Amino acid sequence: MNNVLMGIAKAGIKESGKEDLLVIKLPFACEAHFVFTTNHFAAAPVLYSKNMLEASGNRVSAMVINSGNANCGTGIEGYEHAKMMGEKVAELFDIPKEEVLVFSTGIIGKPLPIINVLEGIEYAVNHLEVLDLEMAAKAISTTDRFPKYAFCKKDNYEAFCFGKGAGMIHPNMATMLAFCFTNSKLMPRKYFDDILEKTFNSIDVDGCQSTNDSFGVISYGDLDYSDDVYNCVYKVCKEVSDMIVKDGEGATKIITIEVKHASIKTKAKVIANAIATSNLVKTAMFGADPNWGRILAAAGSTIFPIDPLKVSLHIMGVKVYDRAPIHFNKEKLSQKMRESQDIEIVLDLKEGKEHFSYRFSDLGYEYIKINAEYTT
Amino acid sequence: MNNVLMGIAKAGIKESGKEDLLVIKLPFACEAHFVFTTNHFAAAPVLYSKNMLEASGNRVSAMVINSGNANCGTGIEGYEHAKMMGEKVAELFDIPKEEVLVFSTGIIGKPLPIINVLEGIEYAVNHLEVLDLEMAAKAISTTDRFPKYAFCKKDNYEAFCFGKGAGMIHPNMATMLAFCFTNSKLMPRKYFDDILEKTFNSIDVDGCQSTNDSFGVISYGDLDYSDDVYNCVYKVCKEVSDMIVKDGEGATKIITIEVKHASIKTKAKVIANAIATSNLVKTAMFGADPNWGRILAAAGSTIFPIDPLKVSLHIMGVKVYDRAPIHFNKEKLSQKMRESQDIEIVLDLKEGKEHFSYRFSDLGYEYIKINAEYTT
Repeated sequence: MNNVLMGIAKAGIKESGKEDLLVIKLPFACEAHFVFTTNHFAAAPVLYSKNMLEASGNRVSAMVINSGNANCGTGIEGYEHAKMMGEKVAELFDIPKEEVLVFSTGIIGKPLPIINVLEGIEYAVNHLEVLDLEMAAKAISTTDRFPKYAFCKKDNYEAFCFGKGAGMIHPNMATMLAFCFTNSKLMPRKYFDDILEKTFNSIDVDGCQSTNDSFGVISYGDLDYSDDVYNCVYKVCKEVSDMIVKDGEGATKIITIEVKHASIKTKAKVIANAIATSNLVKTAMFGADPNWGRILAAAGSTIFPIDPLKVSLHIMGVKVYDRAPIHFNKEKLSQKMRESQDIEIVLDLKEGKEHFSYRFSDLGYEYIKINAEYTT
Repeated sequence: MNNVLMGIAKAGIKESGKEDLLVIKLPFACEAHFVFTTNHFAAAPVLYSKNMLEASGNRVSAMVINSGNANCGTGIEGYEHAKMMGEKVAELFDIPKEEVLVFSTGIIGKPLPIINVLEGIEYAVNHLEVLDLEMAAKAISTTDRFPKYAFCKKDNYEAFCFGKGAGMIHPNMATMLAFCFTNSKLMPRKYFDDILEKTFNSIDVDGCQSTNDSFGVISYGDLDYSDDVYNCVYKVCKEVSDMIVKDGEGATKIITIEVKHASIKTKAKVIANAIATSNLVKTAMFGADPNWGRILAAAGSTIFPIDPLKVSLHIMGVKVYDRAPIHFNKEKLSQKMRESQDIEIVLDLKEGKEHFSYRFSDLGYEYIKINAEYTT
């Protein structure tokens, strides 16, 4: 971790005057895997960073991340601004501009105060120190209620991750960002995809896709890749992604839906996703209602067939449906749901060997308040 | 309309003791087009009616519809009950059982009180009268706040429609049902599909698909099919579908999103649907917030590319985005949105000739209250 440096500035992008600019300096041009939002209304820095990764062959020497402004929906000027940020960092570090990535998060549709941002970059580059995960997480936070980071060490291997995201708390705020670092050689892409699927791609707050979402694993060391690396990277990504659900706007419960014994993994995932994003399921969870009808109706709404005469459903260990409705103590289960912050739902399709788990938050009054009342 | 008869009973399915059973008797085995929910957790009567339509070659002589219980998630017994309902009607009218359709709406997961239902059917069949749209609509209502029906006459042509649906107001309540009748020969299937697309398939309350949704057009006359018939059928279906959005749970606003100038119709529809079902857009509408960032982010979340440097967006006639953010009076537009129950949004993709409109309701506190607090 001592090889990864950071510089932080208060560039005046956030109205609060807090830290809003982070520069990360890596020891050399590190190999990396990155994924970005698939939203066609993607922000300028997303488009810019994709282009840079392509030009550099997925090598990263430095990153610059600002919070308080997403630089999204900002037209051609927005791309120019992202470019100016990246090129400024490259110039100051004297590295190829293709090896510098740019990220932004915050309000949509307002031009970046680019003069301030460039000054902030200069300040940050001139005040480098060893990466502090908490400080880095805070510098890229927007409406997060707590900083999100995790660290893992196994023998000589280490992995750490910091990120931000809390649904879309403020009207124009968005975005999940997460950056993971490891001192091993870069893991094969398939393992990266696998970890992504099980962590940041398996969570839902409000079903709404952001314009700035980005996640990457950066390899800054040369230890051989091993299972320990996989486990370490998975662990820190899982912890940070769970923190994002916990910080979900207005969330009072964290629900895990596990779809078991599906014929293929995609089916398990699509069905788990349909349940996790259903407003009727989310409101039932908020109301501590063991409403299995809504869960099965959501499960049945995808393109994949399920057989109501075959499946079974458990809520917090209590069987509530098994090929047909079965008797259970509703009052008691509801009480149990009311008292717990964590609710586990298991849907057993009884047809194959694949399974998939999703983590999601409930939907309550606070979500409406946050998203409807704190407006322009 | 005098050729279509109805019988109504209080079968004791609804706890309120109100009318909960409707039998419709047609003058002969009428040709019909029907569509049903694509949910794999479809209710027993949906499966039964599909089988009957296949067996009869889409001919219908009678229908029986109960409210108060959806006969869904009721296992093998549920299908038996639907069959008993259909066969009872067939027996009493002395018609082939294949020509009788069965529909249910109400609570999920409880067995039908089948003895009561069969007695209700007998009563209804023995008390036939000419169809009264309002009474019919009331008999199939669950949590609807008002009966939904419409009538249209052009020269000798007539079309009428009654239906029910209000989102999923009560915890286990569900379903949109609508039945349209016309005295012309049956319209070609493509026109039926076209009307369906523009009416019942273009509305959204909470993005949640029901297990019992059914819609049909039944032809009980032999006048030649013409544009007048199309227009009449479209008009009554549009009116009833609009009533369902108006009655959406907790709805304070009815929003129309029109996606214009798409390259293909499917693209216009998929993008309109993404906007209509976005919780962030729905809450912004509830809060009278002209939040164009959320609308464009939802528009960009589908598989179809949109170009932020090309599109424009209007809210209630005010241009808010055109290839880049543009200046507009936010306070004034917000005020206008606050004062109106109807909000129109137009997204212009500027790439082709196709367009599609969706109608949807907003998302406010009342939805949470209805869906989380009135629980088991």
